[in-house]
Amino acid sequence: MDLADTVEALTFDVFGTVVDWRSGVEREVAAIARARRIEVDYASFAAEWRRMCDPSLEEVRSGRRPWTKLDDLHRESLQSLLPKYGLEQLDEAEIEQLNRCWHRLDPWPDVLAGMQRLRRRYLLVTLSNGNVRLLADMAKRAGLPWDVILGAEVTRRYKPLPEAYLMTAELLSLPPERCLMVAAHPRDLDAAAAQGFRTAYIHRPYEYPMLPPNDVPPGRYDYAMADLNALATALGCPEPSD
Amino acid sequence: MDLADTVEALTFDVFGTVVDWRSGVEREVAAIARARRIEVDYASFAAEWRRMCDPSLEEVRSGRRPWTKLDDLHRESLQSLLPKYGLEQLDEAEIEQLNRCWHRLDPWPDVLAGMQRLRRRYLLVTLSNGNVRLLADMAKRAGLPWDVILGAEVTRRYKPLPEAYLMTAELLSLPPERCLMVAAHPRDLDAAAAQGFRTAYIHRPYEYPMLPPNDVPPGRYDYAMADLNALATALGCPEPSD
Repeated sequence: MDLADTVEALTFDVFGTVVDWRSGVEREVAAIARARRIEVDYASFAAEWRRMCDPSLEEVRSGRRPWTKLDDLHRESLQSLLPKYGLEQLDEAEIEQLNRCWHRLDPWPDVLAGMQRLRRRYLLVTLSNGNVRLLADMAKRAGLPWDVILGAEVTRRYKPLPEAYLMTAELLSLPPERCLMVAAHPRDLDAAAAQGFRTAYIHRPYEYPMLPPNDVPPGRYDYAMADLNALATALGCPEPSD
Repeated sequence: MDLADTVEALTFDVFGTVVDWRSGVEREVAAIARARRIEVDYASFAAEWRRMCDPSLEEVRSGRRPWTKLDDLHRESLQSLLPKYGLEQLDEAEIEQLNRCWHRLDPWPDVLAGMQRLRRRYLLVTLSNGNVRLLADMAKRAGLPWDVILGAEVTRRYKPLPEAYLMTAELLSLPPERCLMVAAHPRDLDAAAAQGFRTAYIHRPYEYPMLPPNDVPPGRYDYAMADLNALATALGCPEPSD
């Protein structure tokens, strides 16, 4: 049987794979700084805020701190970042507004059309470290047609811990091999594969444009695709005009 | 401030409130019996299967048995019901097909239009004892536009346990009073209200047509409505033509 026929759910990484966090965060910090007439290196700000994410997740993954939502981890990082960028005078409403920029990220250009094709055949599911409310707000604003919003907050395990993947499959009443993890990041795909998930690598050259092209070795993942439309074609999901 | 402005999420009971379990279960057991040329009192069958649900949930609520998905509880009840209705010769595929009829229930006639109005203003969330996969399959088939599928399987607490409500609000990053529980059943609404949820009673006279009208005392719930369109109007969600 074709792999495309054995898979029932596509589980998606979100930040970087589905949405462009870089342009969204840059846009919002630039807007707040402009309103305050402060000059900010918004590109560095966005990159540094994002870089602070994984170490803060690791505190929770390791058990050194109890479960904490991504919104709250983002907020702590933001708070410590503001003085460095001359933004220490932002008031509480502005800080909260800025922290919520992660709820308002835009999808990459191929995403809405690709998801519309994929959803006719598969359950489309988030498997993200984002918290439920963040992902729900993002989906509503951008029109992302998720069938189910799952991930770290529901499993209380941050990726790439094995239980983040296994508990998600269990909530879908599926064995892991009927789930296809869709992500732009080898670390995420490797962790999913280690739990028996099928894997689809999506190349997102604009997530880290300063890095050399992140080519993956042929055959390392079940699919390696340029975008979600290419994945839809590879999985036999017809184009709307068909 | 108007109550409608303080609420951010509508949390829905599903079986009986959103979908008509009775006609859906009757239809599927009748079809399988017909294919097998067995005469079945499908109305009694559906009513009895449904009546077996709460006692099986209570085994889990009480802690006498570990967490078990609703699909598996349904299956156990079904298995014990088949001989009584002359259906003991159904094969494994037929039994599994019949057990999945809960994934294929149809919404009441007002639901799709009402939800489309409500979703423009609110997060629409399941707070059901149904498991995630059941609710996702049902939504996909019927076109129910949920923003988030939550409930007993995610919280690992069956309604009306308090944590089923409180943990759902926490996953939405909302205090309970910003959640409006929408249900046709006083027991569910009373349990939600006890945890601080707002409440909307929806009258579903065809769920239990043999019972006297289940009128609720004025003022017992924040809203008492004939259907979801009436609720949308009460909450200030315009009709599509507006």
